[in-house]
Amino acid sequence: MKVYEYPPRSQWAEITARPHLDTSSLHIKVSSILDDIRKRGDAALKEYTLQFDKTELENLQVGKKEWDKGCDLVSPELKKAIETARDNIAKFHASQTLEILKTETTPGVVCWQKPVGIEKVGLYIPGGTAPLFSTVLMLAVPAHIAGCREIIMCTPCGKNGNVHPAVLCAARIAGVDKIFKLGGIQAIGAMAYGTESVPKVYKIFGPGNQYVTAAKQIVSLRDVAIDMPAGPSEVAIIADKTSNPAFVASDFLSQAEHGADSQSMLFTLDADIVSPIQTEIERQLSQLHRKELTGKSLEHSKIVVLKNREELIEITNEYAPEHLIIQSKDYNELGEMIVNAGSVFLGPYTPESAGDYASGTNHTLPTSGYAKAYSGVNLDSFIRKITFQEITREGLKNLGKTIEIMAANESLDAHKNAVSIRLSSSNKK
Amino acid sequence: MKVYEYPPRSQWAEITARPHLDTSSLHIKVSSILDDIRKRGDAALKEYTLQFDKTELENLQVGKKEWDKGCDLVSPELKKAIETARDNIAKFHASQTLEILKTETTPGVVCWQKPVGIEKVGLYIPGGTAPLFSTVLMLAVPAHIAGCREIIMCTPCGKNGNVHPAVLCAARIAGVDKIFKLGGIQAIGAMAYGTESVPKVYKIFGPGNQYVTAAKQIVSLRDVAIDMPAGPSEVAIIADKTSNPAFVASDFLSQAEHGADSQSMLFTLDADIVSPIQTEIERQLSQLHRKELTGKSLEHSKIVVLKNREELIEITNEYAPEHLIIQSKDYNELGEMIVNAGSVFLGPYTPESAGDYASGTNHTLPTSGYAKAYSGVNLDSFIRKITFQEITREGLKNLGKTIEIMAANESLDAHKNAVSIRLSSSNKK
Repeated sequence: MKVYEYPPRSQWAEITARPHLDTSSLHIKVSSILDDIRKRGDAALKEYTLQFDKTELENLQVGKKEWDKGCDLVSPELKKAIETARDNIAKFHASQTLEILKTETTPGVVCWQKPVGIEKVGLYIPGGTAPLFSTVLMLAVPAHIAGCREIIMCTPCGKNGNVHPAVLCAARIAGVDKIFKLGGIQAIGAMAYGTESVPKVYKIFGPGNQYVTAAKQIVSLRDVAIDMPAGPSEVAIIADKTSNPAFVASDFLSQAEHGADSQSMLFTLDADIVSPIQTEIERQLSQLHRKELTGKSLEHSKIVVLKNREELIEITNEYAPEHLIIQSKDYNELGEMIVNAGSVFLGPYTPESAGDYASGTNHTLPTSGYAKAYSGVNLDSFIRKITFQEITREGLKNLGKTIEIMAANESLDAHKNAVSIRLSSSNKK
Repeated sequence: MKVYEYPPRSQWAEITARPHLDTSSLHIKVSSILDDIRKRGDAALKEYTLQFDKTELENLQVGKKEWDKGCDLVSPELKKAIETARDNIAKFHASQTLEILKTETTPGVVCWQKPVGIEKVGLYIPGGTAPLFSTVLMLAVPAHIAGCREIIMCTPCGKNGNVHPAVLCAARIAGVDKIFKLGGIQAIGAMAYGTESVPKVYKIFGPGNQYVTAAKQIVSLRDVAIDMPAGPSEVAIIADKTSNPAFVASDFLSQAEHGADSQSMLFTLDADIVSPIQTEIERQLSQLHRKELTGKSLEHSKIVVLKNREELIEITNEYAPEHLIIQSKDYNELGEMIVNAGSVFLGPYTPESAGDYASGTNHTLPTSGYAKAYSGVNLDSFIRKITFQEITREGLKNLGKTIEIMAANESLDAHKNAVSIRLSSSNKK
């Protein structure tokens, strides 16, 4: 953990920089595997799964009985928690539903947007040390609310050939239609191109390692849309002398435990709070199971003391954190000044883990400063807004001249003619 | 123009296929130019502009006087038309503004989305045979409404070193902040990386040729967001025996005149209307200035007669047209059944050219079937929806157990601890 006291602006770029995950060196290898999946379908998927995951699959899809059985293994306590989270995520994402609003821009010219769910979506849930059932909820619940007709999911199975029960249970509760035991490049290729077993989808969502990221980038150039670029997770915390050091330290650490490449940042105007927070971080760290990994992530975490509120807001917006927790007294006022962030947590009793699991907001958020251009996953991510317009004969009379003049000045005769021919016909009647 | 009468479903994939614009062969060349722009900034921009566009630039930016002078050259008639179009585009896009709506998902847990304009956006307006001032409006007007703080635009100048007056005028009317005389790869590189003269932006919008498309793809892998993948423009028209053949033909041709690679499709249930429409197309074509180019585009345009309404809707949704014009009697009913399209034009007096210029809807739309996953450019394209949440002490008590159980089951101790530490502190009080 490096502490910067009143750094000059010239140093800000260095402070807010993220390690860039350059996957371009992987592109050749990943592309050749994707090509092979495109050509050989299921056979290729099975071979690569054996090669990379050391698992021999007979059926790629999780069968109904297998799925039921997995769900039965989940404790009632966890099941209830998943359902509570599902309800909150559903409530918040349903509140994002767009009403169809017709706008008459000129008398007789009516325009509107109609939201329509993407018909086929694919969700990727990574394997690894922990079962990421919360990510299943974050992706499948909004897809369901959006009205996506086919929601499929790929996730690697364990060495025993089974998908983790909690993941199966969350998928059932969230309304996933089909699950395939595929990880990494295989999963992305299967969903992008479709194979004998796996349906092709129109958009792929979900986190993953550098191979998954590279594969998503490559297929997004032509075959399928993706949610957003991915990078290591991160949090920025704004605190002051009214903040509880134990709360701040717990948030700092909960980000850090995500992975060795995670980053936690603390921005403050009060140099006095640095030492108590550091002490709390050390104390809490010693009690964590993932102590070692969390400690590694702390190595590139930073505490930055700024001169004034203007600097505080400016460096926060420049950093554009995935998660931003504001625990200072004036958290509402500061919150209003935030223009670049994925998700903002306001006040002392709003830890990031609430949003990670169950408050209702989505946890699939833009990292690495992408919050400057991207939103996190939300209901919009699963719909298209198709524009409609209807013009009456009168409406075209009102607007026709404008269109004709513009078309003529862009040298587009036929565009002009499509109006002229209608106007002259309508004049005759 | 090929006519298909009652094609079997096995032939549909061939009918609805688009020529794939594969720009990957350009990636090595385009990447090396982009790298050079990243390293050498303005000097590289000037060299490539001399090399590719045969124009020697002293200043990259359009000066204020030059801009004023250009605007003065535009006829009052065209200026008024541009203003009318601007007003309608502004009305429709302003109607898309998101109200902040707070949702209490659990007592004491409040979540909301706050729309914030992307701070810096870059618009690309191609050069070529006609001045695309309408595209300036389609991109800059919503950017302005979204509250983007810096709206810059790149467009190549003519051999005389000047940007077309109509483009300058539209940029002034729409609220563009700065214009740079850059085309092609230079423009995209400049806006993605920033140079001495050109500010770096966070998202790049606008159409272009295969070099622009390749450059946008490459910079989008890491440095900047882009609007959407690009391909040749296209229309599908649904007509029946009540449709006016002259209207249908005029729409068919107005799409075809966009470029030799444009595609017009006609879907109908009435075989009898094919011949009168073909006759009208021939008649109107002979009167067009862009006759030759339009004729080329007609070569890969298609007329398809379907068996029944189910087939009609299915093939339309499978084609997922950028523009869809429905001129049949039951246009409202059919419109309701459309799930894949960029923009839909309903009824006999709603030509595509209305939406291309002045009705208020956007004309930057997903081509090549991308409408299955992408919306056209709209107000959303220029904002991020940042999520906010505030939880009271009571709220955390209500939701805490759920978060703790889920975190423990994902083996994330510190996530659990961020809640437990707050709950135990609040219990003490």
